[in-house]
Amino acid sequence: MNKNEVTIFSPATVSNISCGFDVLGLALECICDKMVLRKTKKKGIRITRITGANLPMDNKNNVAGHVAGIVLEAGGADFGLDIEIEKCVKPGSGIGSSGSSSAGAAFGANYFLEKKFSGEELVPFAMEGECIVTGERIADNVSPALLGGMVLIRNYQPLDLVRISVPKNLFVVVIHPQIEIKTCVARAVLPEKVSLKTATQQAANLGGLISGLHTEDYAGIAASLNDFLAEPHRSKLIPGYDDVCQAAIDAGALGGGISGSGPSIYHLCQGKKIARQVHGKIAELYAKTGIDFKMYISRVARTGAYAIEQ
Amino acid sequence: MNKNEVTIFSPATVSNISCGFDVLGLALECICDKMVLRKTKKKGIRITRITGANLPMDNKNNVAGHVAGIVLEAGGADFGLDIEIEKCVKPGSGIGSSGSSSAGAAFGANYFLEKKFSGEELVPFAMEGECIVTGERIADNVSPALLGGMVLIRNYQPLDLVRISVPKNLFVVVIHPQIEIKTCVARAVLPEKVSLKTATQQAANLGGLISGLHTEDYAGIAASLNDFLAEPHRSKLIPGYDDVCQAAIDAGALGGGISGSGPSIYHLCQGKKIARQVHGKIAELYAKTGIDFKMYISRVARTGAYAIEQ
Repeated sequence: MNKNEVTIFSPATVSNISCGFDVLGLALECICDKMVLRKTKKKGIRITRITGANLPMDNKNNVAGHVAGIVLEAGGADFGLDIEIEKCVKPGSGIGSSGSSSAGAAFGANYFLEKKFSGEELVPFAMEGECIVTGERIADNVSPALLGGMVLIRNYQPLDLVRISVPKNLFVVVIHPQIEIKTCVARAVLPEKVSLKTATQQAANLGGLISGLHTEDYAGIAASLNDFLAEPHRSKLIPGYDDVCQAAIDAGALGGGISGSGPSIYHLCQGKKIARQVHGKIAELYAKTGIDFKMYISRVARTGAYAIEQ
Repeated sequence: MNKNEVTIFSPATVSNISCGFDVLGLALECICDKMVLRKTKKKGIRITRITGANLPMDNKNNVAGHVAGIVLEAGGADFGLDIEIEKCVKPGSGIGSSGSSSAGAAFGANYFLEKKFSGEELVPFAMEGECIVTGERIADNVSPALLGGMVLIRNYQPLDLVRISVPKNLFVVVIHPQIEIKTCVARAVLPEKVSLKTATQQAANLGGLISGLHTEDYAGIAASLNDFLAEPHRSKLIPGYDDVCQAAIDAGALGGGISGSGPSIYHLCQGKKIARQVHGKIAELYAKTGIDFKMYISRVARTGAYAIEQ
């Protein structure tokens, strides 16, 4: 075993889970970024290679480099790290690309600090990575990427993360249309204010979703998967959005919505068989649009980022 | 046993449970309206006596009379009912006075229909009683009054009620300052719109509260008991509101807020001992205001309205 080298897998995530807009995310089991970290005598971080995406190599602009650096610094490390990144979670996909890199880097740096920090303690470091990309210290991707499962961001000041129980038989189907939605556009379409009634409806649905998840009440989960805040505005930016959702529901999905700020669309399903049906129906439908796409079927990951020792 | 007479007890309720503003209510165990219903050969409802409050006796304006009438009609009854009402849940108290009367009448009429309707099916009838008093078919008092426990109104169209698990050791302390807040005033102070951020914070707290209740995570319950929608505006209408809340928290309460649209204030507590401390501190404090008040300590009622046969 080479204690100076480790391979980290860090999951993609679905955030903005419908009524959990801005506050609820889950980790996917089947899509992970891969990072190889090597301990170096020289202090500081060096991104040595990136495959799978065209990303900045300098630490100021590379989220993994930046996050690994601040974790090592906070841990008082007298060493540095070389990092090789294999991006599987594509930037701009809506399934937490920067979150995956940020979480993986935080987890990897902590590995060499002999796990000085808990998973929860790593979240604020990873949020700094999100800040480079989005300008905001958002936690709804990095939290499930680090902790696994589904995580509710109950509060930011102080940061308060609630792990939500997820039925074992819950599957996620994701379609990633290969188009770009600029974050500034996704933000600009959101209203500044909503009616009091809309606010209470959103809360009621999130309450219903959390209750349904805890009690494995699939009908309750299905009934609650509505977003009154972002989806009515952002869905227009995704070609074929309504048709995809209708096809998914027709094929037996519990419900779904925009993953992150899109263009990916997620659906939750009870069981693998239904997930496959949903996958098939969406693929069949989207092939007709002429827009290239990728699809995934995944369980909710039980654990977040993890290490394979060499 | 006299099959032609029954005594119904119908609980007071706390609605607008902080982050559950407009969508979450609970039934109190220790405060109930009492109604005696007698079957009559003559069809129609007759309110024969009301004690404990000055309320209209005619069926159009008396919620119990109205609700009992529509339940009997829907059930195809060939008989009528005489109803005696002993109001313990005072009108205008904020602990669901009209909800208690409406739920009790629905339950009582259904008793003589040999329980033709389920508890859930009785809710829409009881909502008609609320409509007489408030002008709206609200469900967050009548649902827990009929079903017991804590109930989330996930949706109105169609009506979708979610029963929320409540830790056995959860106690509720209520203070009812003997002042009147007119419903029109309590409504007028609410904003028509709120910021997107406020809406997501409210939802996150309700999600956190439901999760905390299901997992008996008292710290999570405590952290979630915040209302960003109504409390900032309505609390100003209740003399000493902030001081009561501070005293309750200092005495160990998990959190609390306005019960209904006030003037009652509720606090949730872990265990009877803490509930008694909270009760004592609030009573001590409120005695200084010179405003008369009543207080209650109660468990969350496991069941809603119930019948005692003669």
